[in-house]
Amino acid sequence: MSRKGLLFVISAPSGAGKTTLCKAIIDILPNLRHSVSHTTRAPRAGELDGRDYHFVSDAEFDAMVAENAFVEWAVVHGNRYGTALASLEELRGAGCDVLLDIDCQGAAQLRERCSDGIFIFVLPPSFQELERRLKGRQTDAADVIEQRLRNARSEMGQMFWYDYLVINDDFDLARQQLQAIIMAAACRTEVLKEQVQDLFGEISN
Amino acid sequence: MSRKGLLFVISAPSGAGKTTLCKAIIDILPNLRHSVSHTTRAPRAGELDGRDYHFVSDAEFDAMVAENAFVEWAVVHGNRYGTALASLEELRGAGCDVLLDIDCQGAAQLRERCSDGIFIFVLPPSFQELERRLKGRQTDAADVIEQRLRNARSEMGQMFWYDYLVINDDFDLARQQLQAIIMAAACRTEVLKEQVQDLFGEISN
Repeated sequence: MSRKGLLFVISAPSGAGKTTLCKAIIDILPNLRHSVSHTTRAPRAGELDGRDYHFVSDAEFDAMVAENAFVEWAVVHGNRYGTALASLEELRGAGCDVLLDIDCQGAAQLRERCSDGIFIFVLPPSFQELERRLKGRQTDAADVIEQRLRNARSEMGQMFWYDYLVINDDFDLARQQLQAIIMAAACRTEVLKEQVQDLFGEISN
Repeated sequence: MSRKGLLFVISAPSGAGKTTLCKAIIDILPNLRHSVSHTTRAPRAGELDGRDYHFVSDAEFDAMVAENAFVEWAVVHGNRYGTALASLEELRGAGCDVLLDIDCQGAAQLRERCSDGIFIFVLPPSFQELERRLKGRQTDAADVIEQRLRNARSEMGQMFWYDYLVINDDFDLARQQLQAIIMAAACRTEVLKEQVQDLFGEISN
């Protein structure tokens, strides 16, 4: 019964609702975990090392990059963030499924080394709706929104290499679809093969 | 939004609970239909031509076999039963997903011509439990049960070429898993690609 955990990689343009979806799905599925990233950014109030992030120095991050320890990493606002292969393998080795919420560039990098990952792209129902959602937040200036929309168009050009698409129009439906993708992946024959062989022993044809 | 319907093919050894599972899932999913088979057997009381079966003569069945009209057919208790490609294509063309409940031999035949089908094998949690269920029915003689158990072992030797395995231990969980497999299949990128291109037009990369 102790199969290796599965790896789910989710990307989406800003405003598609990925963060809320991921949070909802992690709350529902007890065997699904977020992987903990490494970052050179300083901890914020309330953040715990090893829970929210692995906080490391620039030199430590450099060393990990040199060792090829990251399956993907990126610079965001001058700080570096990375997903260590060891972090994923530790969780998966313990039988936990892992949910990784990263941008398209990171997902494409990761696919090179984790080809057994299941890649899911969340998209808004339309560009109009995406614009409406981004403007509705009322936190960003018009030029920032314009930039986000340009980025969204560019990220959406990547979606066709993902395994699954989830159109986040009705939130409950999108959550059910994401849950179905995760549940179905665990029923794939190659995932269950060992368990079934344990249950039934040698099966004669 | 009018994508071609998907084709789900389900097999299981006798006693695994396939019929109850299929009935439950058809009741839940309005877009999922049973395909209507052709048979040379005479209609029973209450059976309607075109709803329960397409009732045909031996000569008509022969002609359809000669025309290669069946994706699979078999003889059961002296009567012939077959699934016509045209029956599947008609439903799928109308956007309905089709659930086909056939034995391993039929499924293997069908795979030759419907390679885009999603193949699901339902299995009992153990041979002991299968034996218990078959004996619990109290409808079959001991030698019939022995034969069914031998057939089950033989059919289970086929399961590893199926795409998905559903272990029917807890019925509700098995139903959820079957539902998840069907729902996830509709989220596959190749299935949604056309719909997404309609929604977003040309997406620049």
